[in-house]
Amino acid sequence: MAIRVGILGYGNLGKGVECAVKHNPDMELKAVFTRRNPDSLSILTEGAKVFRAEEALSMKDEIDVMILCGGSATDLPAQTPEMAAHFNVIDSFDTHANIPRHFEAVDKAAKESGHVGIISVGWDPGMFSLNRLYANAILPGGSDYTFWGKGVSQGHSDAIRRIKGVKDARQYTIPVEAALTAVRSGKAPELTTRDKHTRECFVVAEEGADLKAIEEAIVTMPNYFADYDTTVHFISQEELMRDHAGIPHGGFVIRTGSTGWNDENGHVIEYSLKLDSNPEFTASVIVAYARAAYRLSREGQSGCRTVFDIAPAYLSPADGAELRKHLL
Amino acid sequence: MAIRVGILGYGNLGKGVECAVKHNPDMELKAVFTRRNPDSLSILTEGAKVFRAEEALSMKDEIDVMILCGGSATDLPAQTPEMAAHFNVIDSFDTHANIPRHFEAVDKAAKESGHVGIISVGWDPGMFSLNRLYANAILPGGSDYTFWGKGVSQGHSDAIRRIKGVKDARQYTIPVEAALTAVRSGKAPELTTRDKHTRECFVVAEEGADLKAIEEAIVTMPNYFADYDTTVHFISQEELMRDHAGIPHGGFVIRTGSTGWNDENGHVIEYSLKLDSNPEFTASVIVAYARAAYRLSREGQSGCRTVFDIAPAYLSPADGAELRKHLL
Repeated sequence: MAIRVGILGYGNLGKGVECAVKHNPDMELKAVFTRRNPDSLSILTEGAKVFRAEEALSMKDEIDVMILCGGSATDLPAQTPEMAAHFNVIDSFDTHANIPRHFEAVDKAAKESGHVGIISVGWDPGMFSLNRLYANAILPGGSDYTFWGKGVSQGHSDAIRRIKGVKDARQYTIPVEAALTAVRSGKAPELTTRDKHTRECFVVAEEGADLKAIEEAIVTMPNYFADYDTTVHFISQEELMRDHAGIPHGGFVIRTGSTGWNDENGHVIEYSLKLDSNPEFTASVIVAYARAAYRLSREGQSGCRTVFDIAPAYLSPADGAELRKHLL
Repeated sequence: MAIRVGILGYGNLGKGVECAVKHNPDMELKAVFTRRNPDSLSILTEGAKVFRAEEALSMKDEIDVMILCGGSATDLPAQTPEMAAHFNVIDSFDTHANIPRHFEAVDKAAKESGHVGIISVGWDPGMFSLNRLYANAILPGGSDYTFWGKGVSQGHSDAIRRIKGVKDARQYTIPVEAALTAVRSGKAPELTTRDKHTRECFVVAEEGADLKAIEEAIVTMPNYFADYDTTVHFISQEELMRDHAGIPHGGFVIRTGSTGWNDENGHVIEYSLKLDSNPEFTASVIVAYARAAYRLSREGQSGCRTVFDIAPAYLSPADGAELRKHLL
């Protein structure tokens, strides 16, 4: 019998989960839950139903794992513990600083209800975190580097859109090639924020807006742009739609370190992603971990987990003997 | 109290383990066991002892994990199950085709004795296998590629040394850059053996040997060289010692695949290693998994495991809260 999945929240990530479930024959989308009017939603999966978010509990016995696709700012801190009281849950909570608190809340709810919750699943946090952990365990005393991009930063795009005179905008985070090269050399360079990434902005201005003022407002914006070399391009709405409609992303996790009695040998471990669609890839990672949540729950486990706590074999539909034979 | 480690077999890998233990403050090397005369061995760790391999059992109560550093052809198939009857064990068994049989033998011995055995630890099998598994779970329906090098292949170097007239030799396996580029493009190319790797040989010939015959014997050797584009350089023993004394290696694991309702978005996942010392890096992975073996054993678990079966958190000296705070 297929693993029965529910999706709470049908934005880019929710749609990505729907597509990822389609790619995994051992999984089945049962229902999508939304805060919008269910009649306004048209989903892709034949046979799956759309309900109001408040109706989730009525599907308690028909869903093995509930995948939470809301935002980290306000949705998930409330929703994940709430849903963990009734379902196995999985989310992509990505506010790094608040992960410990979120973990505690989900752990408490999941333990009380006897369910499994897996939080902060995706690629960062997620696959990048895993690669940091593995590389740190292998090369203690080394140096860690994470680069992001080339990719669209939703937060930075939003920040530009809030500037007076801006109609629409898209911001790309771009790793500096020279910094990547220096890191890969194994020389463990100290890199400033400016050394590591540049920011490129494509801006659609309102008619008659002061372009100089907009550019100045962007490049001097504290936290978001002031510490980076930032380029601003003004383009038309048509150009934005035509050339910048995608949501690509990616990045690099690199650790360098040395071995030998006197640290005489150097090593470089590198993990990289090049993604055409950030939300669809995140969703694909989440769905693999949904399989793990289901299995852990069937084993009788409960409480909160992260990608650090889950043996890789739980992610694969293949059994142990098959994995050892074909992938080891 | 530190995790007390024993090493069985003191070749390149055993020495690498000794160095890796030094890099991990929560571990301590108690003893090295050798089939050579213990008096002939001079190890680097102050306070650690050297014993004959047959004396291992007498140290049963002073060693938490025995790390087996013998070869996969004849040593490990016998030693790992034998030692698993008395110790938590870990090895780097790398004869892919025989892993299922080796797993069964170690599993039986370890279950009977109540110990944990972890087999096939290193980078391939090991970290490369893990990356194949993770990437397969995330992108079902994609394409897998593993490239090795640039690095020294011990097996191929040995094969050249067996040719009449050859005094010494070193063989490098080199991934073909054009093949890597084609794979990273996401076009899922079909690649032959010849497309993926070239082989470069540095050969020291005996005085008066027939160089043409040696070269011919190398490039036409079935399995080892016939299916590759192979280059042969004749050099002096001094040049070999000076320029080719290291044991570098590395490689790339790449998976490409697509997401979206109609597979409209492509993704590239890449993991790569660039290693100055193959045995020291392998040893560093093994020592991280020795920590896991110790912990699993303390939890009361027993039987054989591979890297697929072990949650990443077990590899790190840091606890869960610390990992979530700093690496997630």
